[in-house]
Amino acid sequence: MSHSTSSETSTALFTDRYELTMVDAALAHGTADTECIFEVFGRRLPGARRYGIVAGTGRLLELIRDFRFGDPELSWLRENNVVSARTLDWLSNYRFSGDIWGYREGEAYFPNSPVLTVESTFAEGVLLETLILSVLNYDTAVANAATRMVTAAHGRPVAEMGSRRANEHSAVAAARAAYIAGFDATSNLEAGRTWGIPTMGTAAHAFSLLHETEEEAFRAQIAASGPETTLLVDTYDVEQGITTAVKVAGPELGAVRLDSGDLPTLVLEVREQLDSLGATQTKITVTNDLDEHAIAALAAVPVDSYGVGTSVVTGSGSPAAGMVYKLVARKDNDGDWVAVAKTSEGKVGVGGRKFPVRRLNGSSVAVEELIYVGDGPETTPARSELERPLLVQLVSGGRVDERYTGPAGTALAREHRAHILTELPADSARLGRGDPALPTRFAK
Amino acid sequence: MSHSTSSETSTALFTDRYELTMVDAALAHGTADTECIFEVFGRRLPGARRYGIVAGTGRLLELIRDFRFGDPELSWLRENNVVSARTLDWLSNYRFSGDIWGYREGEAYFPNSPVLTVESTFAEGVLLETLILSVLNYDTAVANAATRMVTAAHGRPVAEMGSRRANEHSAVAAARAAYIAGFDATSNLEAGRTWGIPTMGTAAHAFSLLHETEEEAFRAQIAASGPETTLLVDTYDVEQGITTAVKVAGPELGAVRLDSGDLPTLVLEVREQLDSLGATQTKITVTNDLDEHAIAALAAVPVDSYGVGTSVVTGSGSPAAGMVYKLVARKDNDGDWVAVAKTSEGKVGVGGRKFPVRRLNGSSVAVEELIYVGDGPETTPARSELERPLLVQLVSGGRVDERYTGPAGTALAREHRAHILTELPADSARLGRGDPALPTRFAK
Repeated sequence: MSHSTSSETSTALFTDRYELTMVDAALAHGTADTECIFEVFGRRLPGARRYGIVAGTGRLLELIRDFRFGDPELSWLRENNVVSARTLDWLSNYRFSGDIWGYREGEAYFPNSPVLTVESTFAEGVLLETLILSVLNYDTAVANAATRMVTAAHGRPVAEMGSRRANEHSAVAAARAAYIAGFDATSNLEAGRTWGIPTMGTAAHAFSLLHETEEEAFRAQIAASGPETTLLVDTYDVEQGITTAVKVAGPELGAVRLDSGDLPTLVLEVREQLDSLGATQTKITVTNDLDEHAIAALAAVPVDSYGVGTSVVTGSGSPAAGMVYKLVARKDNDGDWVAVAKTSEGKVGVGGRKFPVRRLNGSSVAVEELIYVGDGPETTPARSELERPLLVQLVSGGRVDERYTGPAGTALAREHRAHILTELPADSARLGRGDPALPTRFAK
Repeated sequence: MSHSTSSETSTALFTDRYELTMVDAALAHGTADTECIFEVFGRRLPGARRYGIVAGTGRLLELIRDFRFGDPELSWLRENNVVSARTLDWLSNYRFSGDIWGYREGEAYFPNSPVLTVESTFAEGVLLETLILSVLNYDTAVANAATRMVTAAHGRPVAEMGSRRANEHSAVAAARAAYIAGFDATSNLEAGRTWGIPTMGTAAHAFSLLHETEEEAFRAQIAASGPETTLLVDTYDVEQGITTAVKVAGPELGAVRLDSGDLPTLVLEVREQLDSLGATQTKITVTNDLDEHAIAALAAVPVDSYGVGTSVVTGSGSPAAGMVYKLVARKDNDGDWVAVAKTSEGKVGVGGRKFPVRRLNGSSVAVEELIYVGDGPETTPARSELERPLLVQLVSGGRVDERYTGPAGTALAREHRAHILTELPADSARLGRGDPALPTRFAK
């Protein structure tokens, strides 16, 4: 037990107790080292959406790299009799040494898409279940919502500003997932620092209320940030606020922000007033309880950009992506791979290692999520030129592929999402509830 | 800039950029030190519930204590031109030095209840907005859902096991909030370590699938954990699983767990089978996509305990409590307190410092959330014996009252929730959508 990982950096106790009790029992019984394959998938798309966007992968890889049991964790487990001394010793040497494959971060997914595949011993793989699902279920829920908002915005920039409506750490992850799904910026400073996402923000109603007059507040803000800033004009009276804003900043005022009121009507009035004051280049940004449907409803009025809060960080009605982590194959006592699955009523699984491809037609439009099923990792499916393989290797013998981590991995995922969206059928952009844009088919 | 707070422990960048740009402008304009009062409240109860439970306060106090800008934060802000050099210098010395009052953690709240009151300079107080709302909005959303589940369970124990359906840090906060709202245990090990919450968990379907037979898996688990463990019996066939479980563990088997199927029917069959095998003391725990309504629907069948996942960690339909942080009063240039509020259409506020009391009838049943409104902190409302004051001081001159922090503060909050629930009218226990159990009234 030579590790000294501090409690602040170790991710090892972000784990359900039963993962450790299973390791404990398997070690004692001699089955802990059985070679296994675990897969992550969702049985359906949350909210009856047309497609989902995988997010969290790059963040997850860093957490898996840091998944170690240090002295503080081991002491706590010992004092609380969670596992045996033998298991504590095993945990003290834990370092994931297997392989992980997965959908690229930013990739579209569908019901039963095997978005992550873990190949390792039983004990090494089962220990990561909770952490893997926590990251993928939250980040993907945000990306699933965000991609629809970006589509609904038809090219107008969208900023994420929901930090205050999510746990303080979730807020950082949400900013990242929304950015991957096509958002342009975030209000969250830690997301800027950790993931290299552009940050934005100027002032709240409190700043206007702090000063004796709105004009004084606007003067203070412009003195600090210049006339290209965004002024919040709906603290007292919008029409008066805009008059004051243009008086103080001049027609070079960057933008006005509207955070309340009936936006479709208000935006038209505001545009007219700004134009009449000569502020024809001043932009209008709106931020009042928007979701993908509210954004779509504003398509016909001259909004220049959107700020989205609650709905994106809470997955717009589906705050968890509903992914599960299942043992799908293991080696038997003879060393042969055996497909395994729960078979009792409800939540029945499909055993065996999956090799997903996206089948395209001659015009490079996706027509099917085709999942070849083998027994173990050595099975390779037949493929045609019109089948795009969906799995990439993320971890090899415990070594994380660093291209997918950090700010660079985040930017790569954002590019990937933009790229693959062009491949999906037009139906995928529909906001209404319905069937997935692609059918999923299993094939031997 | 002598601080060296590491990026891992500083909570300072869990902050929206506009908080810093407002401080920047206010420092330049000379208004940063204006004495202010900010309040946190929700305009309505999410999900048309009858009451809410405040949660997150103890956790928040620790985060406020650690809210410092260290060299890594300051360097990043400087490199990204977020604020001026003068503001960076001010931030380097930042330490909240004001007062904070609030509802006790575990207290019931209603629309417009001022659950937290921050008295400080503008700059000191505005800087905490995002962090305060992040913590209270998420933790309270979980507690709001959890308290209904506990009520629906009618005294049967309820365990939180939703870590996999929430961001990995949210999972820890959710376990804590659910515990405060009356849950009995969590699957989350970090919640056990950090907040002293009892942890539980035995095995997943993967453990059964790892072994050649279900019987072998059960033998392995019992060898490690004893016959008092909980066996998961629905991997292959429930009836066969129970026969095997009792064969292997004997009638002293602790419990069986059901994680799929039509529970109201299944539980009756399982109880009958267990009794017929002599396992009359063996308990039944169920864990299949439960929420408060599913729990209520199981009241008539012999379930012994519930495990709740997704629905509790995502606030059962309302994943953010919708609380806001508003400037309600400031000192004017003459040193007098002035009530302030946004007045334009939509999101109109009530200015002035609030002094909330819960008014009780002669039988000690609550009848009203009565909110006295003053201008500044020195106004004290008239009170009768039947008015229970709701604010306690949490921070005095920047010093956190440690009684409310850590595992002890968490246990205290759980006791408080159990206590105050006895004071609410019977109507508060109804699960259907409707009006708040108490009306809220403002009074001068």
